[in-house]
Amino acid sequence: MPPAAVRPSFGRVALIGKLRSAEIAESLRELRGMLEQRGCEVLIERETASDLGLRGVDYAAIGAEAKLAIVVGGDGTMLAAARNLVRHHVPLVGVNQGRVGFMTDIGHDDMRSGIGAILDGEYSIEERALLEAEIRRNNKSVLQTIALNEAVVGKGSQGRLIEFNLLIDGEFVYTLRADGVIVATPTGSTAYAMSAQGPILHPAVPAFALVPLNPHTLSARPVSVSGSADAVRFVHPPGYSYFATLREKLRWSEVLEKNRDLE
Amino acid sequence: MPPAAVRPSFGRVALIGKLRSAEIAESLRELRGMLEQRGCEVLIERETASDLGLRGVDYAAIGAEAKLAIVVGGDGTMLAAARNLVRHHVPLVGVNQGRVGFMTDIGHDDMRSGIGAILDGEYSIEERALLEAEIRRNNKSVLQTIALNEAVVGKGSQGRLIEFNLLIDGEFVYTLRADGVIVATPTGSTAYAMSAQGPILHPAVPAFALVPLNPHTLSARPVSVSGSADAVRFVHPPGYSYFATLREKLRWSEVLEKNRDLE
Amino acid sequence: MPPAAVRPSFGRVALIGKLRSAEIAESLRELRGMLEQRGCEVLIERETASDLGLRGVDYAAIGAEAKLAIVVGGDGTMLAAARNLVRHHVPLVGVNQGRVGFMTDIGHDDMRSGIGAILDGEYSIEERALLEAEIRRNNKSVLQTIALNEAVVGKGSQGRLIEFNLLIDGEFVYTLRADGVIVATPTGSTAYAMSAQGPILHPAVPAFALVPLNPHTLSARPVSVSGSADAVRFVHPPGYSYFATLREKLRWSEVLEKNRDLE
Amino acid sequence: MPPAAVRPSFGRVALIGKLRSAEIAESLRELRGMLEQRGCEVLIERETASDLGLRGVDYAAIGAEAKLAIVVGGDGTMLAAARNLVRHHVPLVGVNQGRVGFMTDIGHDDMRSGIGAILDGEYSIEERALLEAEIRRNNKSVLQTIALNEAVVGKGSQGRLIEFNLLIDGEFVYTLRADGVIVATPTGSTAYAMSAQGPILHPAVPAFALVPLNPHTLSARPVSVSGSADAVRFVHPPGYSYFATLREKLRWSEVLEKNRDLE
Repeated sequence: MPPAAVRPSFGRVALIGKLRSAEIAESLRELRGMLEQRGCEVLIERETASDLGLRGVDYAAIGAEAKLAIVVGGDGTMLAAARNLVRHHVPLVGVNQGRVGFMTDIGHDDMRSGIGAILDGEYSIEERALLEAEIRRNNKSVLQTIALNEAVVGKGSQGRLIEFNLLIDGEFVYTLRADGVIVATPTGSTAYAMSAQGPILHPAVPAFALVPLNPHTLSARPVSVSGSADAVRFVHPPGYSYFATLREKLRWSEVLEKNRDLE
Repeated sequence: MPPAAVRPSFGRVALIGKLRSAEIAESLRELRGMLEQRGCEVLIERETASDLGLRGVDYAAIGAEAKLAIVVGGDGTMLAAARNLVRHHVPLVGVNQGRVGFMTDIGHDDMRSGIGAILDGEYSIEERALLEAEIRRNNKSVLQTIALNEAVVGKGSQGRLIEFNLLIDGEFVYTLRADGVIVATPTGSTAYAMSAQGPILHPAVPAFALVPLNPHTLSARPVSVSGSADAVRFVHPPGYSYFATLREKLRWSEVLEKNRDLE
Repeated sequence: MPPAAVRPSFGRVALIGKLRSAEIAESLRELRGMLEQRGCEVLIERETASDLGLRGVDYAAIGAEAKLAIVVGGDGTMLAAARNLVRHHVPLVGVNQGRVGFMTDIGHDDMRSGIGAILDGEYSIEERALLEAEIRRNNKSVLQTIALNEAVVGKGSQGRLIEFNLLIDGEFVYTLRADGVIVATPTGSTAYAMSAQGPILHPAVPAFALVPLNPHTLSARPVSVSGSADAVRFVHPPGYSYFATLREKLRWSEVLEKNRDLE
Repeated sequence: MPPAAVRPSFGRVALIGKLRSAEIAESLRELRGMLEQRGCEVLIERETASDLGLRGVDYAAIGAEAKLAIVVGGDGTMLAAARNLVRHHVPLVGVNQGRVGFMTDIGHDDMRSGIGAILDGEYSIEERALLEAEIRRNNKSVLQTIALNEAVVGKGSQGRLIEFNLLIDGEFVYTLRADGVIVATPTGSTAYAMSAQGPILHPAVPAFALVPLNPHTLSARPVSVSGSADAVRFVHPPGYSYFATLREKLRWSEVLEKNRDLE
């Protein structure tokens, strides 16, 4: 991840917050003041606004007009906002009220400085690929959705393993007898796919990981395949490091203390 | 991998073979006749030629003039030829005398039909990323090399684990106490990195896998990072499938027989 | 596993078979003749007998009187017979109509020679530990059962991971956020626990493996703990090898072909 | 691990310390005073004594006479003392000057209370199996040794993998193409074998783990096999928990913070 460069700043900014939290309402008010003071036009998402006793606009309006969306909440709020805005290519930045998450990397205490830097044009942009999933039955689509993390084909509530063939663009990949399979984006590679022993994919890798869920064979191994897809754009303040997030949130590759005598 | 499309054919073709093998010499002669019959100009690599009692040309000439190089041997011969031709962007196709390998996917029995199809313009092209590695000491480069599989930082002959910091473009990734770390290309992801529990990367994924060697921590996990690099181009006859190679060569995700009674 | 020693032979033998299979009925008739010819008294399990149009005895009678039970079917039939006879300590030997299984290691073609050797006193005995599982709610037992493979604490049909504490004899082991945990016997270590990346335990190891199911942490690792429990006794003909079964049934540690050129 | 029971106390106690450490010398003097005050006879190991300016006894004398050996140092000092005393069955307790280790579970601050409790007869005993290893060439033994952690068959300084057959008591287990194989005791299962993805074995499990080192196959999986062997006996003060040590020293199964919003 290169250091944040100075870039043109944003004129019209949307605010989106997790509902029903007094602390989040307070942060949203603070951000609104800060934005207006800088001459930005502020759009508040409709449900977020109703929490604040204000009038808001819907996601379509935010998508059409906002140059940046600031999301106050956790990774779940960010995920929901990203799904609503993905078709409109509005970049998002996340402010986390509690501990910072994988997607919301500005903590409450750093909100003024972090958002300030971004509005000053000091930021980096990170694209996060999305996964389109569709369920078809009898040649009819019964579900279409967009995922930032993963799609899981599972055995459902039945107790037994399932057997299925996996194909990519018509090419046969394997037959698997397993509890299921996870198709994960790089963002999802640190979520459920990680629990299933999948590899971590840096967000800049344009690939999906295919991770078997409890395969009934010794010779299964996750494979990453290339994919290009829609993406959400996350805005990070200066100092952001994906690897630092891995180390802090997952305690990835943590060094165990040395035994002073043995080594 | 899309089905092989019909493309313009090759006019000047180089032949490269593993030295000192009567069977390979016989295959090279057969290929030479087949190429000349089709009106191709044939260049024979110098050392290969001396084995056949012919005059040959060096790799620089092949690189400058050949539109295709046919390599007869195993993955090792292919690897050597690829290193010699990578700067010249000559695509390669491999013919394996014994069992087909990861890089040499035309078996001896299919040589005439496979090479024939390719010369007719029916083939697919697969780019395989290469890794440039350099060892620097006291700000001086002591080794520079190109790898098709992997670069390994290891503990050498000393018995103990080593501790090192890993950085990417100056960004700190982690401190590791381990026997070492493997940086693998997608091609290398099925070689030594596979033995170290690394993930498989499809050749079309523009990424490298960082795979720790026996890390002294429970929380290590391989990560794949994006990379763009020089590449060699492999030419495949119709019907080639990367996943089929994984299944056949590694017995990847092999389905164990069902117990007829239990399930 | 030591070579089968010559031991005292069995006088009263029970026959148990998978229901509704003409082939199995035929094998049972053949075994009955073979046993009577050798002067053994034959007890036929009641449901098995009704399939053959004969009168049978119940498991309590088999448990009280039989010195050996021959089970014809697959691992599932063997498992059911083992559960019914575990309290009575009757050793079992399994004959598999199709391919041999983990527990039924005499194939149909070797039935006469294998059972003959055992009746001649040439056999080895292998103890397989059983697991007693109990579900308690509000200090009341709501389920008690015996397992030859494993007990699984799972998330059921709900989509999310569960969080639970695991204690052994009152000692806290860990808190886990996961899809669940498997407690596996050595026999079960090659079943579902294997799919969840658990270690293989040789049947002679008096231990259980605790294998997390998709744990939401990088630092989980299966642990094996000691346990003593009821056991079933399997009788094997000369030549039985547990490791050979692992290699044949699971293709355990299969050697991939060498690439003739590379190495 | 059951709670420490009140048991008969020890009359003759040996002191062993890591050499050349002023802090350890101070601890040893304090322990000597404490032991004499309680009427215990104190034996000081010869090299340890020379550090203190006292006369000491050799390990043979300690082995013949001491009922308990108190080791002050780290896991390495404990390992050395255990090797010297294993044939004599003297139980050991470890005091760690710095952070407690896997084998030295009494920290300096708890030395008086921990050792006091043990001398009062409040302790638990834990047996740790040892591994005897022998290297034979041309039917002659060239090395015999005892290991508390593991024996490693490795490729040495050569760069390539090795191929070998593994047999147990003459029974063929597998052919492996790998960097090597680790045979680990339960104590060693949290050392190098852990780095090679081996399973953790509780010290009370009478088994060894066979853990391949970077096997060149997808279908390798560690197996634990039963073994009975010499053992050292570790004495633990009340409150000792093996699982707590795993959690504290290895951060085993560490619970990652919940994302407050997502779940």
